[in-house]
Amino acid sequence: MTSLDDLPIRDDLRGKSPYGAPQKHVPVALNVNENTHPIPDDVAHDIVARVAAAIIGLNRYPDREFTELRTALARYLGHDLVPEQLWAANGSNEVLQHVLQAFGGPGRTALGFGPTYSMYGLLSSGTGTGWIAADRDGDFELPPETAVAAIERHDPDIVLLCSPNNPTGTPLSLETIAAVADAARGVVVVDEAYQEFADPGTPSALTLLEGRPRLLVSRTMSKAFAFAGARVGYLAADPAVIDALRLVRLPYHLSALTQAAALGALAHAGEMLAMVDEIRAQRERITRELRVLGFHPYRSGANFVLFGGVADPHAVFEALLDRGILIREIGLPGCLRVTAGTEAETTAFLEAMASFAPSTPANA
Amino acid sequence: MTSLDDLPIRDDLRGKSPYGAPQKHVPVALNVNENTHPIPDDVAHDIVARVAAAIIGLNRYPDREFTELRTALARYLGHDLVPEQLWAANGSNEVLQHVLQAFGGPGRTALGFGPTYSMYGLLSSGTGTGWIAADRDGDFELPPETAVAAIERHDPDIVLLCSPNNPTGTPLSLETIAAVADAARGVVVVDEAYQEFADPGTPSALTLLEGRPRLLVSRTMSKAFAFAGARVGYLAADPAVIDALRLVRLPYHLSALTQAAALGALAHAGEMLAMVDEIRAQRERITRELRVLGFHPYRSGANFVLFGGVADPHAVFEALLDRGILIREIGLPGCLRVTAGTEAETTAFLEAMASFAPSTPANA
Repeated sequence: MTSLDDLPIRDDLRGKSPYGAPQKHVPVALNVNENTHPIPDDVAHDIVARVAAAIIGLNRYPDREFTELRTALARYLGHDLVPEQLWAANGSNEVLQHVLQAFGGPGRTALGFGPTYSMYGLLSSGTGTGWIAADRDGDFELPPETAVAAIERHDPDIVLLCSPNNPTGTPLSLETIAAVADAARGVVVVDEAYQEFADPGTPSALTLLEGRPRLLVSRTMSKAFAFAGARVGYLAADPAVIDALRLVRLPYHLSALTQAAALGALAHAGEMLAMVDEIRAQRERITRELRVLGFHPYRSGANFVLFGGVADPHAVFEALLDRGILIREIGLPGCLRVTAGTEAETTAFLEAMASFAPSTPANA
Repeated sequence: MTSLDDLPIRDDLRGKSPYGAPQKHVPVALNVNENTHPIPDDVAHDIVARVAAAIIGLNRYPDREFTELRTALARYLGHDLVPEQLWAANGSNEVLQHVLQAFGGPGRTALGFGPTYSMYGLLSSGTGTGWIAADRDGDFELPPETAVAAIERHDPDIVLLCSPNNPTGTPLSLETIAAVADAARGVVVVDEAYQEFADPGTPSALTLLEGRPRLLVSRTMSKAFAFAGARVGYLAADPAVIDALRLVRLPYHLSALTQAAALGALAHAGEMLAMVDEIRAQRERITRELRVLGFHPYRSGANFVLFGGVADPHAVFEALLDRGILIREIGLPGCLRVTAGTEAETTAFLEAMASFAPSTPANA
């Protein structure tokens, strides 16, 4: 039998393992920051109708420029954006891959502030871009001076700012983003995958786009929009940036089904996002109750909470899994990450965690 | 206003233009080798039902391993293939990109026999792989000795064999493919995007897979399956090759909608492919009638015909477009390419071509 080692794969892939959060079917899945609320029925019906119309014409290639979708995305984001400033791809991972293909590559570097989204390093490696993981301050915070010092020290071609940050949840201030954009020579991507979960009134990096042609703001429909299965990520930037991404995208990269489904979801943005307040309330409840139990939850602006103070994270992960609750081990010592799900899912998680509480006599 | 030249794009992208067959809405579109027959109604209904079921669960990520789809693809291809030998992505372009990412990259080369599918060079460049376009014999034929001589001269890491070849239509013999597979040190990809249109009884390169772990056979649902809008390409190879592709694919690259739609189409493969005989008949008619008109059609095993003997290809392209008929300029001197459409579309094309016939007195 032939093994991977027998094949002439690229040298830097030797010994590597594919990305993989475990895929397990459990009653309470709180491991990959999905929106655990299903799509509302009436919205689902409209999406089905739009997709059905697209199926009739599937023998033809889709609109390579996805003009209708870019128009709908511009309208959804507001901030006076026009369709020429919008881009989309099969998940924000592919959006970021396009950015790295256009602005990175051999001899160039991308910088992020670790711990951060693990795909940044993998996407950099996949495009031959050097990956630099700079440090954050205590409690994973990233004030302007820390960020700018790293930019000045490493002079990267691409900066990837995750706002709020995954897997820590840490909100990122506009002051830090503006300071980085002003200090960086290359392009600066603000990955706002979880931005809709930020506290009400929190401004988006979209407010900084005007006059900053090297600033890019990416989003996804996977999280707040409850649309992870449809794979739709998008980005707003100067029209010249969109022209650059057009040079590296595969032709017809967005299927007619994807375009139709995304248009359906965007036409019902209000309903699709109706669960965000409820999810934010569960996040606050997780933070509050984990603290009462004696754990150390970190500040989060996302739909998940990272918490420390876990004596044996792997044992807790396994014990929860035995109860049908799947959360995430992310490799940070003493830490675990949990997605804010429905009220019932949150209750199941918190009740299970009570038996591992550092402050209870049994574990003291 | 910022222009592309003002941005820090990768040096090798400077001055490049994006891939682009013109996207025009015309009554008779015969330019991108689509299947011009729409999906049969009852199949469309079943696909809608499957996609509708998937929409209910779109808040969750799709199956990252698309196991059900790989199983259906193995069953469709036959040849005793098992799901572990199958791969799929958003169009065969993405499948080939995965191959180049896994087995190509900086310092490595990919070789094809030009003129061939223009994306091979673009995908190579996009992954930092050197692209070598070796020559074909007269009439774009590729006998074993010509192919092997190029392999021995260039010693490429990847060989891309388009069978039948796009844009020339030239069938490729199993003898050539086997000789290349035996001579090459690296991986050999046989791109069978148009294989279903080959003359009945023509064997697929799938028959050569056994015992050749570096041989890969790619296919697409865009052509014979009339499924271009759904973006589904796939590949069969040794399971170790599939493991290699898993290292470079983006997680969850195939949406739940794509997986559901492809499963629906594969469940009705017989009906979806029912138009292939009719399309082949129109291809033969195009070849026959163009020859009578005095043009030089090349031998084709695909759903299109390349023909030479055109005094001014651009003028003919424009004149046909004025009549609502879109065909393809592919940059080969004196040549144009036309897709075999429905009988009525073929008639419209042939009637229009009559006025440019080299053998008619008006143009003699």
